[in-house]
Amino acid sequence: MKIAVDAMGGDNAPQVIINGVENARDQFKDIEFILFGNEEQISPLIKDNSRLTIVNTTEEISMGEEPVRAIRRKKDSSIVRAAQAVKEGTADAFFSAGNTGAILAAGIFIVGRIKGIDRPGLTSVLPVAQPGKQGHGFVYLDSGANAESKEKNMVQFAHLGRFYAKNVLKIDNPRVALLNNGAEEDKGDQLHKDVYQDLKEQQQLNFVGNIEAGDLLHGKADVVVSDGWTANAALKATEGSVRMMLTLIKDGILNGGLRAKLGYLLLKPVFHKIGHLMNPSLYGGAVLLGLKAPVVKAHGSADVTAVTKTIEQIHTMINTKVIDQTVDFFGNEENIDNKGKLD
Amino acid sequence: MKIAVDAMGGDNAPQVIINGVENARDQFKDIEFILFGNEEQISPLIKDNSRLTIVNTTEEISMGEEPVRAIRRKKDSSIVRAAQAVKEGTADAFFSAGNTGAILAAGIFIVGRIKGIDRPGLTSVLPVAQPGKQGHGFVYLDSGANAESKEKNMVQFAHLGRFYAKNVLKIDNPRVALLNNGAEEDKGDQLHKDVYQDLKEQQQLNFVGNIEAGDLLHGKADVVVSDGWTANAALKATEGSVRMMLTLIKDGILNGGLRAKLGYLLLKPVFHKIGHLMNPSLYGGAVLLGLKAPVVKAHGSADVTAVTKTIEQIHTMINTKVIDQTVDFFGNEENIDNKGKLD
Repeated sequence: MKIAVDAMGGDNAPQVIINGVENARDQFKDIEFILFGNEEQISPLIKDNSRLTIVNTTEEISMGEEPVRAIRRKKDSSIVRAAQAVKEGTADAFFSAGNTGAILAAGIFIVGRIKGIDRPGLTSVLPVAQPGKQGHGFVYLDSGANAESKEKNMVQFAHLGRFYAKNVLKIDNPRVALLNNGAEEDKGDQLHKDVYQDLKEQQQLNFVGNIEAGDLLHGKADVVVSDGWTANAALKATEGSVRMMLTLIKDGILNGGLRAKLGYLLLKPVFHKIGHLMNPSLYGGAVLLGLKAPVVKAHGSADVTAVTKTIEQIHTMINTKVIDQTVDFFGNEENIDNKGKLD
Repeated sequence: MKIAVDAMGGDNAPQVIINGVENARDQFKDIEFILFGNEEQISPLIKDNSRLTIVNTTEEISMGEEPVRAIRRKKDSSIVRAAQAVKEGTADAFFSAGNTGAILAAGIFIVGRIKGIDRPGLTSVLPVAQPGKQGHGFVYLDSGANAESKEKNMVQFAHLGRFYAKNVLKIDNPRVALLNNGAEEDKGDQLHKDVYQDLKEQQQLNFVGNIEAGDLLHGKADVVVSDGWTANAALKATEGSVRMMLTLIKDGILNGGLRAKLGYLLLKPVFHKIGHLMNPSLYGGAVLLGLKAPVVKAHGSADVTAVTKTIEQIHTMINTKVIDQTVDFFGNEENIDNKGKLD
C-alpha cells in the first residue's frame, strides 16, 4: 500500500512528520510512502530512504489561509499534490497535519465523496475514561466538518461510524448513540427528534438511544453520532476541561511547597496513567469519513507518537477495506431503500 | 422582602431546603419566607419559625413529570402555589430545587415574562478556573431553557446577562462574548454570524467577540451568551469532564496502594482547593432571567450550602433591583430602536 504524506503540514513539520513516517515504515513492511513537500528541506532530515519517495512541491498552504480558495489557487502545494495522488490512484490514502479546512476541502473536492454520501463527517476516536472500562475508545462524528448538519447527513454518519468501529476498533455490532440534550426518546429539537426515529428504524444499526454530553467519556456507546456543530462544542468543552483540571493540579503542586511536591512524587504513577489515558496522540488522527479513500488529519501539534499512531490507523483502514465496505453499502439500492430518509 | 419557597422540590427535600432556608433566615434579617408544601412533613423539621410561614399544599410535581401538563393540572402543588404567590405580589421571588421543566413553565406562564422579552434564558454562574484568576465567576446563558434560540433571543440574552453580571457579580462594564465554533469574526453557522454582527452593533454592550467551548472556564469574558442548545451541550460536557477527572484521580488513589494514599494525604490541600473551586454549590442556582421576578432553581441534589447560597443570590437580586433595571431597559423604546434586531 502507498500513503501520500503532506510533509509540510503541522507546527513541527517537516521534522516530526518525517520521524513519524520513518517509525511507521520500520514497523509496517507493506507501506510505501510518498512525501510531498520542499525536497531541499525534507531530504536532509531523512535517516533511511527505503520505501520513501519525495515529490518536490513549490507552494505551501499556511494554517490561517481560507481553505477552498487555497486549494484552488495553490495547485503545487503539498496538500493539493498529495490529495491529487490519491485521486489518480498513485496512492491509497492521504495524511496531513496541516490546515484542517484545506484538508477537508482537498478531501471533498479532489479525493471525492463516496456515491450516496452527501456530506463526509470528521471522525475522531475518543477515550473511554470510566474506571474499569479504560483503554477502550469510541467513535465520534461529525466532530466538526460541517457547521450545519441535516437529518440524512446524521443517519449517514451513523453508518459510517458503524463501519469504522467494526473494522478499525474491532468492535462487533457496535452500539450507536445519538448525542442529545437528554436521555429520553422525546428529547431534543426537531432535528434530533427526527434523527432519533430514523436511527431506531435502521435495522443494520445497534441503536442504543440518546447520550448526553456529560456522559461522553463513560463508555455507554461505541459510536456517538452528532451534528457537526454540537459535537464540536462538546468535544472542545471536554478537551478544555480535561486540560484545565490538569493545569489546576499542576498549579496547585507548583505553589504548594515541599509537601505538595512530595505528594506529587508519590502520586506520579496515578497522574501518569491519567495523562496517558487522556493523551490524544494515542488515539490517532481525525478521519474524514465518506470519501473514496482514507483522508486523515493529525493535530497541528502532533508529536512523533501521534504521527506514527495515525499512520498505523491508516494501515488498518486500508487492510480492513473499511472504505470498500462503506462504498458497497451506500451503493446498494436495497440498503438505501431500507434507510428510508437516506435518499 | 418575601421569598416563596417550594419546600418539596429536590432529592433531599424538605429537610435540606428547610435547613438552608433557616441558615439564610439567620443570616439576612430582612428576608421573610413562605414555605409551600406538605405542612405535616415540614412543620416538625423547623427549628425556629420566626420569619417563616407555612402554606399547606396537597399536590406534588415529581422529577419525571411532563412540565406544562403538570403545572396546568396540579394547581395545588408547591411549585404552582409558590409561583402564584409571586404573581399576586404576596412574594418577591420564587425558589425551588424541583423539576426544572416545571419551574421554567411556572416561571413563564405564571410569573410571566418582562415586556419586550420573547424567551427567558436560564442563567448560571460558572467558575473561572484559570490559575491566577480563580475565585471569580462568569454569567452563562441560555444554559438550557430553550432547545432552539433565534437571533433576537440571543441579543436579549446578552443584555439580560449584562445586567446580571453588573448587579449580582458587581462587575463594571462586563465583557460579553458569544459562544461559537471558532474565535474569528467570520466563524459559525448563519445564526451565530448574524448574532455576532448584532452584538457588535449594541452600544450598551462591551462585546469582546467569540469564545470557544474549550476556553469557557478561562475567564476571557464576564458574560457568555449562547443559544440554549449549544450552551447546554458545552456545560454538560464541562461538568461531566470535571467529574470524570476527579473520579479518575480517586480511582487511581484507591487502587494505588499505600504510596498513592500517602501522596493523597500530602496533596489533600491541592485537591481540596480544586474541589472547592469546582463545587457548583458555591455559585448559587440557575436564574430564569427575563421574568418579572427572580425565579431561581437550585440543583436537584443541592445540599444545605447550595440552598443557602441560592437564597443569598436571590437576596442580592432583590436588593440591587436588577429586574427593575431590566424592565426599564426593555421597556424603553429608544433602547429597543437602538438594538435594531430586537423589535
